[in-house]
Amino acid sequence: MSAIARGNLIARGSESSTVTLAHGGGGRLTQQLIEERFLPRFRNATLDALLDSALISAHGRLAFTTDGFVVRPIFFPGGDIGRLAVCGVVNDLASVGAEPLWLAASFILEEGLPFDQLDRVLDSMAATAREAGIVLVAGDTKVVERGAGDHIYIVTSAIGEPRLDPPPQPRLIRPGDAVLVSGFLGDHGIAVLQAREHFFDELPVVSDCAPLWPLVRGLAEAGVIPHALRDPTRGGLATVIAELSSACGLAFSLDEDTIPVRGPVQAACEILGLDPLYLANEGKLVVVLPEASAEQALETLRSCPLGRDACRIGVVLEDTSGLALLRSRIGGTRILESLSGEQLPRIC
Amino acid sequence: MSAIARGNLIARGSESSTVTLAHGGGGRLTQQLIEERFLPRFRNATLDALLDSALISAHGRLAFTTDGFVVRPIFFPGGDIGRLAVCGVVNDLASVGAEPLWLAASFILEEGLPFDQLDRVLDSMAATAREAGIVLVAGDTKVVERGAGDHIYIVTSAIGEPRLDPPPQPRLIRPGDAVLVSGFLGDHGIAVLQAREHFFDELPVVSDCAPLWPLVRGLAEAGVIPHALRDPTRGGLATVIAELSSACGLAFSLDEDTIPVRGPVQAACEILGLDPLYLANEGKLVVVLPEASAEQALETLRSCPLGRDACRIGVVLEDTSGLALLRSRIGGTRILESLSGEQLPRIC
Repeated sequence: MSAIARGNLIARGSESSTVTLAHGGGGRLTQQLIEERFLPRFRNATLDALLDSALISAHGRLAFTTDGFVVRPIFFPGGDIGRLAVCGVVNDLASVGAEPLWLAASFILEEGLPFDQLDRVLDSMAATAREAGIVLVAGDTKVVERGAGDHIYIVTSAIGEPRLDPPPQPRLIRPGDAVLVSGFLGDHGIAVLQAREHFFDELPVVSDCAPLWPLVRGLAEAGVIPHALRDPTRGGLATVIAELSSACGLAFSLDEDTIPVRGPVQAACEILGLDPLYLANEGKLVVVLPEASAEQALETLRSCPLGRDACRIGVVLEDTSGLALLRSRIGGTRILESLSGEQLPRIC
Repeated sequence: MSAIARGNLIARGSESSTVTLAHGGGGRLTQQLIEERFLPRFRNATLDALLDSALISAHGRLAFTTDGFVVRPIFFPGGDIGRLAVCGVVNDLASVGAEPLWLAASFILEEGLPFDQLDRVLDSMAATAREAGIVLVAGDTKVVERGAGDHIYIVTSAIGEPRLDPPPQPRLIRPGDAVLVSGFLGDHGIAVLQAREHFFDELPVVSDCAPLWPLVRGLAEAGVIPHALRDPTRGGLATVIAELSSACGLAFSLDEDTIPVRGPVQAACEILGLDPLYLANEGKLVVVLPEASAEQALETLRSCPLGRDACRIGVVLEDTSGLALLRSRIGGTRILESLSGEQLPRIC
C-alpha cells in the first residue's frame, strides 16, 4: 500500500456527506468516522488510548446506569438527542446522589444520515458532557440499513461516585417528609410534541433538558440528606410519585394548586387532552426529605439557575396504603397511577 | 383505583403476545415488562433495588466498555443477539485483561416483536451472563414503531477489574513478539451469513460466540504477561493485525499456512468471494507476547476448551513500517489492510 493509495481511499470516504453501511463495517471507514467526527470532540487521554475498554481509576462504591434514547425528531426546541443522551444518564446518577464521572456512548446510525446532522448531535453531546463534568471514555458505532432505524439512536452508560450517605432510596422515606420539585413540569414533553407534530403556529415552550448534578451537589454541600430523589422523565411526575409511594408503602398527598406548570404547557395540554403530570421532563428533580430540612433545601435549590422555580408540592402521609393522592383545585382527591400505556411514544 | 381495576389493566396488558408502543411508555406496562420478563431472569440484590443507577462496590482501577448489537437475524446457529451482547462486552474487557464484573443492558425493541422471541433472547443473555460470571445490575427499554427498528437492538455496557499489570496495549509490543490465535477463524461471519441468506443447503458451521475471560484468566494465572490482546470481531483478524501494527509502528508478519480456518468456512468463502481473514469472530483471542512465553501461553490456551485449537500464526518484525504482512501459501507477500468498506453489514 502506498501513501497515495491510502490517501485516495480516505479522500473517497470523506466525499460522502451521509452515513453509509460501510461506516459500520469496523474497518477503515469506521476508523475514519471515529477519528474525524468522534475523537476531536471528546478528546481525553483515556479515550485516545482507543483500547477495547476504557481504563479508569475508581475507589469505593460506584453508581452505574444505562439509558437508551430514541427521541423523534432528533432536534427540538431546547435540545437534541445528543444533549438528552448525556443528561439522561447524568440525571440517573444524580437521582442516587452520585457525581457523574465517566460516560460511554453507543450509536446506532441509519444509513443515509447526513454527516452535518451527526456532527450537530456530537457537538451537542460534547458541550453537554463538559457542562455536566462527565468525561466520555468509551464508544461504539453501528450502522443499519435505511428503514431499520430512524436517523440516530444513542445509548449512553455512565459511572458516578455517590456523594450522599446513605444514597437516597425509597425505603428511607418517612411519614411527614416534604415533597419538592425543582421547577415547571411538562416542558420537555410539549416541546418535543410540538417539534414533531407542529400542532401550534407558535408555542413558547422549550425542553428543560439539563444535567441535574449541580442541584444535588448543592443539597449535599448544604448538608441536606434527601430520602429520595427522582427525575420525572417518561411517565412524568405522576408516575414517579406513584412509584415512590408504592415502593415505600406510604401514601403521598400532592396539592395540585402548588404544582408548577407554565401557562403555554397547560394550554397545550387542555387542547390536546394531555395531563401535564404525565408529561416527560428532562431537567427536573423531585426531592423527598425530612420536613425539618425542607426550607433549607428549597433555598439551596432556588440559588441554582436550574432550581430557580423550586417549590413544595406535597407531603408523605402517615397512611400505609402506598397510594399517590392528588388534591385537586376544586377540592376533590384523585389517585395518581403510573402511566398506563403510552401517552407520547419516543419522547426521549 | 380498586384492586380489580388494577388487576384488569394488568390482565389486558398480559394478553398481548407482542411488544406494543405502550411497553415503551415508562409507565405500568413498562414496569410490567421489567417485572415479568427482565427481573426474574437477572435477579440480584443490586438490580432488584431498581434505583435509577446501580450502586456497586469497586476499588482501584476499572475497565469500562460499551458495544451495540444489531445482528440480523437475531437467532443464528451457535448463538443469538442476547448471547452476542453479553460476549461482546465481556470480550472487550478481556482484551484489556479485565475480569468481567457488572453489566448494564439497553434494549431498543420494535413494536410487534413477539414476546416469545424477547424471552428467548433474555434467557440466552441470562445464561451467558452466568457463564461469563458477570452480573446485570442496570437496564433500560425503549420501544420504537414498526419500521423504525428491526426486532431487537441491544446495547450493553460493562465494568471489569484489570487483572494484568500492565494492561495489554499496543505500545508494549516489541520486535520478536509471537502472534497467537486461540482457534479457527471466520465461523461467526459465515454462520450469520448462512442464517440470513441460506446460500447453502446445509453448512456445518456455527458461530464461535463465547466469553473469552477464561482464556485471559488462564494466561494471568500462568504468569504470562501478554503485550496485546484483541478479539477479532467486525473486520476480522486482518483488521486487528493492521490496527495493532499501525498502533505500535512495527511490522507484523503472518504465515497464511498456519492461520486456522475450517474447511466449510474456507469453501463458503471461495464460493462467495469472501476472505476469511476479514470475517467476524465472536469467541477468538489474538495474543501478542514475548517469544519466551509463547509456548507456555499456547499450552495454557489449549488446556481450556475455548482455546483447544490455539496456534502460532506470526511474529512481530524489527521493521518500523507498521505494516501487516501476510506470507501467502504460494510464497508471495501481501499487505493486510483494515477492512475498507463493508463486507457483511450487521454481522454483530
